[in-house]
Amino acid sequence: MNIITGGVCAPLGFSASGVHCGVKANSNPEKQDLAMILSNCPCTTAATYTLNRVKAAPLYITMNHLENGTARGIIVNSGNANACCPHSKENATLMCVSAAEATGLTPQDFVVASTGVIGQTINIEAIQEGVSPLVASLTTDDNGSRLASAAIMTTDLAPKEIAIQLDLGGKLVTMGAIAKGSGMIHPNMGTMLGFVTTDCAISHSLLQQALSEVVKRTFNRVTVDGDTSTNDMCVVLANGMAKNLTITEKGENYNAFKDALEFICRELSRKIAADGEGASKLITCQVQGGQNEETAELLAKSVVGSSLVKTAMFGADANWGRVLCALGYSGVAFDPENVDIAFASTIGTIAVCAKGEGLLFDEDGATKILSEKEVIIQITLHEGFGNATCWGCDLTYDYVKINGDYRS
Amino acid sequence: MNIITGGVCAPLGFSASGVHCGVKANSNPEKQDLAMILSNCPCTTAATYTLNRVKAAPLYITMNHLENGTARGIIVNSGNANACCPHSKENATLMCVSAAEATGLTPQDFVVASTGVIGQTINIEAIQEGVSPLVASLTTDDNGSRLASAAIMTTDLAPKEIAIQLDLGGKLVTMGAIAKGSGMIHPNMGTMLGFVTTDCAISHSLLQQALSEVVKRTFNRVTVDGDTSTNDMCVVLANGMAKNLTITEKGENYNAFKDALEFICRELSRKIAADGEGASKLITCQVQGGQNEETAELLAKSVVGSSLVKTAMFGADANWGRVLCALGYSGVAFDPENVDIAFASTIGTIAVCAKGEGLLFDEDGATKILSEKEVIIQITLHEGFGNATCWGCDLTYDYVKINGDYRS
Repeated sequence: MNIITGGVCAPLGFSASGVHCGVKANSNPEKQDLAMILSNCPCTTAATYTLNRVKAAPLYITMNHLENGTARGIIVNSGNANACCPHSKENATLMCVSAAEATGLTPQDFVVASTGVIGQTINIEAIQEGVSPLVASLTTDDNGSRLASAAIMTTDLAPKEIAIQLDLGGKLVTMGAIAKGSGMIHPNMGTMLGFVTTDCAISHSLLQQALSEVVKRTFNRVTVDGDTSTNDMCVVLANGMAKNLTITEKGENYNAFKDALEFICRELSRKIAADGEGASKLITCQVQGGQNEETAELLAKSVVGSSLVKTAMFGADANWGRVLCALGYSGVAFDPENVDIAFASTIGTIAVCAKGEGLLFDEDGATKILSEKEVIIQITLHEGFGNATCWGCDLTYDYVKINGDYRS
Repeated sequence: MNIITGGVCAPLGFSASGVHCGVKANSNPEKQDLAMILSNCPCTTAATYTLNRVKAAPLYITMNHLENGTARGIIVNSGNANACCPHSKENATLMCVSAAEATGLTPQDFVVASTGVIGQTINIEAIQEGVSPLVASLTTDDNGSRLASAAIMTTDLAPKEIAIQLDLGGKLVTMGAIAKGSGMIHPNMGTMLGFVTTDCAISHSLLQQALSEVVKRTFNRVTVDGDTSTNDMCVVLANGMAKNLTITEKGENYNAFKDALEFICRELSRKIAADGEGASKLITCQVQGGQNEETAELLAKSVVGSSLVKTAMFGADANWGRVLCALGYSGVAFDPENVDIAFASTIGTIAVCAKGEGLLFDEDGATKILSEKEVIIQITLHEGFGNATCWGCDLTYDYVKINGDYRS
């Protein structure tokens, strides 16, 4: 498996672009806010959606369009979530209609997504006017993916894209992706969007199964502030142009495909966590030796979600008591007297707690380790073989600043 | 029911005090860190404890001492949680031994509690030396309660005490309490401690039942940062000196007693939320018309616990989309299209969302309402008769500052 450039445009048959159309009044004309990803031919398509009971209109429209398991492309805007406002479903449909008219396809061929402020009616006219120049600018080169990844950014500081190639039964298969993080657009909802393209040939049921399992272990293990958006969505388009033997059953090829998808989604998850709102560092929590994977995940999520752990990491404070405390209120049964805790980063590892009691340790050394851009909280429970890794970020002054400002 | 002064010393037969003994090295000698509450005679005693699986040693010792349902007093320190460190149980027992020696009682007569940094062995010698002057200073006047409430403070900015009187079958019954909030002592655990005294005569089983029900509706509905401490404890001592007919069954007197206890605990809960770490305002979330009280509570807790809602309230931003979003990920099933949301404070009420869609509203007026010291988020679900009120506070720069600092 090799990492390559090109993002969603790396696989055969995919083009993409992003333009500024002015979804938000007075927005920066240099900032793209409307993106399209398009395949030359129909794609087997799988998707996962937010678990929030309040779902934005584009999710319902997408669910409907994907009932047949295929799509040709994705139309997505930033600047407005198109949620909890009048005419939201009509407008989500109109986005697909515009995309269809400009491409000669049908509205049902499109996945639609939005991210931004909720509760305000979307400026559908701006989007309708923007679709033609957007389609005219579609390109298969790296620039297309870059523009699309920029167009879906809200408070993200960095665009997020990745692509890889792997050998699948003698055929070169390519997979690419863009994502935006659960930072919140000023002034509203955080949203995680992930769009994966691949030229792999795979049946719909296996594609959906692979995506569902991978999302559970990757995007669903990212916590920036515990708020689950109304608009979260992850979609994979597989157009089969790599001409590999179509994956229709589990086995070596399916596993290789799923591993590749997991790599893609894990890397994007790490990028999203590291670019959480106001974040100064990525926090990775590894729980090992739990009763099973589910409880290990609950424990790791409780730690990366703890405001006290997050502020301690911001302060590079080896305050392991907060870690033990967060494990304790996770809802998982475990024996605190079996718990070992260590802090690690690329410059070293330092054990701070063994069998539930604090160890003497070098505070200055721990501070240095915790001052790195990525810190790892390692927890060992000695209860079984359940492991899980979750990702988060520290809680900083900037988080409060970004989210405490008046809307304007 | 009348509100009176005197805190835990208001009921007949109770004395209290607080002294500085130096639990924490280099601590301010003006700050009390060791407190005692003592009754003239044995008290029927009920308690509730943290649900955190990691429990501090004093909780285990107290559970053991309260197996017979009676106690004479409470010994409690701030500055160290006596949790997750060597000899913690021995030291919690030694605190009771010292209290017993200085009062001529037995160690089993005492409830013991601690709040402060976890993972560091407590300075038991300082406490042992402090107990004699503490007992010598016990007083039944208002000052005793004031000193005790000061001694249990950690990062609390204000001491928390209250007392009331009520008529119970022709007898004047008094109830008093002190509490400390779930602010965290620098640099560690947040802990909620509540100590209630009363001269009411009541059976142990009804006292425990009243306390358990009341705590569920009061202290357990406070969220400062979602972190549940290892040391949380609420204890009621009832010494019977009011000579009312002992409450041994449910009925008018039991209900009046329970209402009084709920008033006491609710007022302390509000004080704790308002004094949350770094808080600039109290946030009260009222959910009405839910399917039942349990789901209404889950919904209200999700809102007051949302970092996005908390930062919006800090910014006096009428960002109701975040409220709806927090309802959506609470885990409770409801129809978003039935939800009404309003913001209120003492200066007015403003509806911002009806049937799940945003209303046009006066943004400046909303900002004024949300700039008050107490703001109320009113949510109506139109699904049933389940109501619940939860309390929290805003998330501010000061929260990050208090908890992000290096330990020192």
